[in-house]
Amino acid sequence: MNPTACILVIGNEILSGRTQDVNVQYIARRLAELGISLMEVRVIPDVRETIVTTVCDVRARFDHVFTTGGIGPTHDDITAPCIAEAFGVPWSIHPESFGLLEAHFPPGEFNAARQRMATLPEGAIPIRNPVSVAPGFSMGNVHVMAGVPRIMRAMFEELAPGLTHGTPVTSISWYALDLYEGTLAAGLSDVQSRHGQVDIGSYPFRRPDGRRGVALVSKGLDAPAVHQAADAVHDLIETLGFTPIAGEPPP
Amino acid sequence: MNPTACILVIGNEILSGRTQDVNVQYIARRLAELGISLMEVRVIPDVRETIVTTVCDVRARFDHVFTTGGIGPTHDDITAPCIAEAFGVPWSIHPESFGLLEAHFPPGEFNAARQRMATLPEGAIPIRNPVSVAPGFSMGNVHVMAGVPRIMRAMFEELAPGLTHGTPVTSISWYALDLYEGTLAAGLSDVQSRHGQVDIGSYPFRRPDGRRGVALVSKGLDAPAVHQAADAVHDLIETLGFTPIAGEPPP
Repeated sequence: MNPTACILVIGNEILSGRTQDVNVQYIARRLAELGISLMEVRVIPDVRETIVTTVCDVRARFDHVFTTGGIGPTHDDITAPCIAEAFGVPWSIHPESFGLLEAHFPPGEFNAARQRMATLPEGAIPIRNPVSVAPGFSMGNVHVMAGVPRIMRAMFEELAPGLTHGTPVTSISWYALDLYEGTLAAGLSDVQSRHGQVDIGSYPFRRPDGRRGVALVSKGLDAPAVHQAADAVHDLIETLGFTPIAGEPPP
Repeated sequence: MNPTACILVIGNEILSGRTQDVNVQYIARRLAELGISLMEVRVIPDVRETIVTTVCDVRARFDHVFTTGGIGPTHDDITAPCIAEAFGVPWSIHPESFGLLEAHFPPGEFNAARQRMATLPEGAIPIRNPVSVAPGFSMGNVHVMAGVPRIMRAMFEELAPGLTHGTPVTSISWYALDLYEGTLAAGLSDVQSRHGQVDIGSYPFRRPDGRRGVALVSKGLDAPAVHQAADAVHDLIETLGFTPIAGEPPP
């Protein structure tokens, strides 16, 4: 069994529709490569009680929790003190991070707001931020990262080598043009039942020129089994009189 | 108090990173316009027990639950029977939807897989699908929609006029170039504490040309209070020696 994970997106800007999240897809793809099973994503508001309660809930249920958002210098950045509260530890200056940030800013500009970014839950291990210095951190199994995508990705890559890995997901896609889900459903259900340890997903698409089709994705941890299921999917498409094309349909 | 809502994204394809979700932002923006407060988003896998348990949980906690995904004709489309199970009602042919779909397909093509799309929890009210006929449905406070964005949006707009509305969110943004969060944090915190019923969010950005800045969003249900807070944000930017620009920074 692979380790499990949950992503917690902390951000009013996602719930208001102001911002299109792009962090979930990045983390999801990387976790699949690392062999960590992403089981759930939650988006919650910048509300102290909600953050604390949700962190306590998900950190007990999953091996890893990845949070994004709420670690900047402004009043609405409350993730770090909430994590401290969830773990029942003080939120205090982290001397090494304080030193790095102090050295980064011109004299006189390392003000109280910026010093908040060097304030971590006691016992947290900082995650280096090669983009803008202010660190993320891991507290137990909770990995706290920035919401800005460029910074989040850099933090994730700092963190990735140290995470307990599992078996990477093997995923094989075939697609066909002009084939509809209703036409292949019975045959695909049969393929799925003969390949129980593989997840077979069916995703209709429509190209910008209006031409339609369906993509069939076989996915699992047992690589030979995934290849066998994907072969069966390929053969099903042919049997129905369509041309299987390897990969995902171009956007 | 506005009615509350939760979005439940049901889809392995989001958790695997295959697909970039775009439905959440659409629904979030429309709910803000309708005066329905989006409190949480969850992404969960196509797993029966997880869907049933999560639906039971969130429908008790929020006034509205909007689900996307899992209502097509293939084996991995299990949302409808799971909703039936969550409500403890049979999952059975809905005659009117059956008739519409039967008339839509050429003779002989309305097969068993497609008939599944006319199978609804007993007591569900269908949501018309002007794009591809197969309906969504409302079961109590749970509104079940397609995952394909074009179809989801059409279903949402069918649903919207019948939802209990509240007070629309008023949102006013100002942004400034070359201003950083660490510079304005103390002043902004002061503005926030003087305008307690308004949510003021601070969002740094970086343009493709590398030039940076910050967007400050004042948001709330009390329109005059939001205008007052936004005026204070405007004045703060000026006081700091920067030029406030109305609206959101261009992407």
